[in-house]
Amino acid sequence: MEVFDVIVIGAGPTGEVAAGRVAAAGLSTVIVESELAGGECSYWACMPSKALLRPVDLAGEVGRVTGLRLEGAGEGRPIDAAAVLARRDAVVSHYDDAGQARWLDSAGVTLVRGTGRLAGPRRVEVTTSDGGTRTLVANHAVVLATGSRPVIPPVAGLAAAEPWTNREATGVRAVPERLVVIGGGVVACEMAQAMRGLGAREVTMLVRGGELLTRMEPFAGEAVARSLAEQGVDIRTHESAEKVERPEPGGEVTVRLTSGGTITADEILVAAGRRSATGDLGLASVGLPESGPIEVDESMRATGVADGWLYAAGDVNGLALLTHMGKYQARVAADVIVARARGEADDRPGMRDRADRAGAPQVVFTDPQVCAVGRTEAQARAEGFDVRVVEYDMEQVAGGYLLGDGYRGRAKAVVDERRRVLLGVTFVAPGAAELLHAATIAVTAGVTLDDLWHAIPAYPTVGEVWLRLLEAYGL
Amino acid sequence: MEVFDVIVIGAGPTGEVAAGRVAAAGLSTVIVESELAGGECSYWACMPSKALLRPVDLAGEVGRVTGLRLEGAGEGRPIDAAAVLARRDAVVSHYDDAGQARWLDSAGVTLVRGTGRLAGPRRVEVTTSDGGTRTLVANHAVVLATGSRPVIPPVAGLAAAEPWTNREATGVRAVPERLVVIGGGVVACEMAQAMRGLGAREVTMLVRGGELLTRMEPFAGEAVARSLAEQGVDIRTHESAEKVERPEPGGEVTVRLTSGGTITADEILVAAGRRSATGDLGLASVGLPESGPIEVDESMRATGVADGWLYAAGDVNGLALLTHMGKYQARVAADVIVARARGEADDRPGMRDRADRAGAPQVVFTDPQVCAVGRTEAQARAEGFDVRVVEYDMEQVAGGYLLGDGYRGRAKAVVDERRRVLLGVTFVAPGAAELLHAATIAVTAGVTLDDLWHAIPAYPTVGEVWLRLLEAYGL
Repeated sequence: MEVFDVIVIGAGPTGEVAAGRVAAAGLSTVIVESELAGGECSYWACMPSKALLRPVDLAGEVGRVTGLRLEGAGEGRPIDAAAVLARRDAVVSHYDDAGQARWLDSAGVTLVRGTGRLAGPRRVEVTTSDGGTRTLVANHAVVLATGSRPVIPPVAGLAAAEPWTNREATGVRAVPERLVVIGGGVVACEMAQAMRGLGAREVTMLVRGGELLTRMEPFAGEAVARSLAEQGVDIRTHESAEKVERPEPGGEVTVRLTSGGTITADEILVAAGRRSATGDLGLASVGLPESGPIEVDESMRATGVADGWLYAAGDVNGLALLTHMGKYQARVAADVIVARARGEADDRPGMRDRADRAGAPQVVFTDPQVCAVGRTEAQARAEGFDVRVVEYDMEQVAGGYLLGDGYRGRAKAVVDERRRVLLGVTFVAPGAAELLHAATIAVTAGVTLDDLWHAIPAYPTVGEVWLRLLEAYGL
Repeated sequence: MEVFDVIVIGAGPTGEVAAGRVAAAGLSTVIVESELAGGECSYWACMPSKALLRPVDLAGEVGRVTGLRLEGAGEGRPIDAAAVLARRDAVVSHYDDAGQARWLDSAGVTLVRGTGRLAGPRRVEVTTSDGGTRTLVANHAVVLATGSRPVIPPVAGLAAAEPWTNREATGVRAVPERLVVIGGGVVACEMAQAMRGLGAREVTMLVRGGELLTRMEPFAGEAVARSLAEQGVDIRTHESAEKVERPEPGGEVTVRLTSGGTITADEILVAAGRRSATGDLGLASVGLPESGPIEVDESMRATGVADGWLYAAGDVNGLALLTHMGKYQARVAADVIVARARGEADDRPGMRDRADRAGAPQVVFTDPQVCAVGRTEAQARAEGFDVRVVEYDMEQVAGGYLLGDGYRGRAKAVVDERRRVLLGVTFVAPGAAELLHAATIAVTAGVTLDDLWHAIPAYPTVGEVWLRLLEAYGL
């Protein structure tokens, strides 16, 4: 039996931040990881997907700017896919977590490689990678940060066809000629764009409803759908797979559609959402439901456990399946754990989650990029706010027009008329990602429109859309 | 004699905004312009310079991204300069202001083409373009928005050599083989970069002091100097022109340096600052000094004139020689003029300049881009604030690293320790322009560090530098 002040299960970004932060405060800390330290984001999600998308995105930009032309553009092959995949391999450190392990070591965090499970209060049993068992006990807290796993819909033959998830898609070794994508969310859109941009001849998206990116403002999904279609992606809305067949492992896949007809492809990617990775965590040993997200309070403490020693941060609590929100929740949890361990006040400014409930910021790295924070108009109305909406076409902003011919974008702000603050902001435009943080500050801090009016966007940046939105509001 | 509610002299962006805004409120409005409606910014400054810089900037980005290569890059000529100049011509509407004139007309503003001069209180005499004279009288206000003119230093032979200013540089018809630039400020840096990027073989900058961009944080000028040098620009610090000779108009220019030695070039660009365009405005007729910037109060009213009918906005008041600040001041002035004309309260939220005194936001569109808002560390210390500074290398942010190999950047935040708010923020990195507005909101609205802590940057964007800065501060 080994005793630590804090035990963290899961060494993705969330677990690493939690562990690093409590260790920096002097608490003895152990982190348990069954795969690679660094987690989903570093090896199989954000990082490799953006490494694949960056050249696709930039090729789009070059296509809009007079005076530049990419080699191979004439033949419709402006991107050297092999070089991009090699760069991706570097970005994921060739799936080697030695660097992350070194960082944990330097941060004073003990890394235990294995699968951790709760075995009663403050107690974690680890089946180590070499088949042994270690029992860890926490003086102060256990933090669950095991993330999430992709959902494989119960379609006949799908699981047996060994479909790609985000892992195989971001780790692609050879771009498939023909790809079927099940889903219309962020991963589906990003990977459809990446594969098509890197040379896939046929990319078909099967989207159950009528729209892409259904959690965003409707114009976001519409703009991305238009762009994907222009790039040659075949988007089938109100369409699902009914049956999947792959007679030879690694061979052709045939997808029978609910609407009738079939599609034959070389790979099939399932991007139909994720669920919290709680199934194998021993939650019953502490009286919690065995599956489903772990319910937490605003300090990330599991509400169903007595004595407040159990915390859950990141995807596993289901609040927001986003790396940056997991890391934020980890900071909240870590600071609370440290304060409580020291017997200090545990309600100081950074010790409560204020960002998840008001609508987490998110970027979709398609072309156009979609970024949003706060509530959509529909959400705000459903919550009963006194809502007013303003919108603006971003190609009318000088800074947008200067970015290239055919630049198009749209911005929307959702205003709380009672307090005259922003409830939500959405930007959809090429390269819009870095516009988001201004909105995140304005929404999170509740900056009033009258104060925003004095925050002058520099000319000629795309940020001048802020002025246009406020003018459209009537300021 | 023609009577209007409001007379605006100068139809640059500042004058246009002022006129448009008072006209929209129902006041009869006339605007007087001796050159092109749309002003310096539209034809000879921001717009054409960014049109020239955009492909240069993007070529730099492509050079950092694996898997893309520009045609002509092998021969060191990745940019089709002729195509870029043609695009510039489109951006400046081929120096035709018909579109702006139509806009003024649609906004209900009367455009008088000619040179306007004050001729006593509320009275403006216009020498029209056809040589006639018109006398305009204002019921409520006269707004001076005549902008600024480039300073030509008193160097022997310089004026006679017909040097380029920003006008000829942004309007370049053929990129010179050899260019000498006098100055080290924004125009000097941007145009040196543009000309070199568009194919100039030799670009030499003569910089009087030891640094570029002296009003910014020192690391900004250092980074731009390093980048320009890498691109082959020859920066001579502590160097000035002593004598300039150009025997043949349009022929070779020879510059004798104060340090000894000479440089021969095809063109010489003077970018040694600007001064308010007040000399020919008839200011003496209303009791004001004939030259120098026009002193205004926080509602943009000229302080030296009785009855408060005279306003000055934009470069002419010397507060901040930036298009966006001129437009801001124009909004302030217009709203005050309308309120006073209606006998309403003239101190509502948008009616006082809050943004100029705290440090106007500014972007330098070099590679790396420099953007800054608020006070530099030196300014904040000089003003007696209790200052703490945090800095962060932006290539350590995942979102920066993903933008390309060799991406480098630096961020600096100046914190007011007493109030725990940001006094100033500077970002220096490729493509950093759109990062600025978040800082502008934070600085202008005085968002506390504790509130900024809950504004979560989306991963993996460059905006995550905000988190790193706050962590570096100790949050």
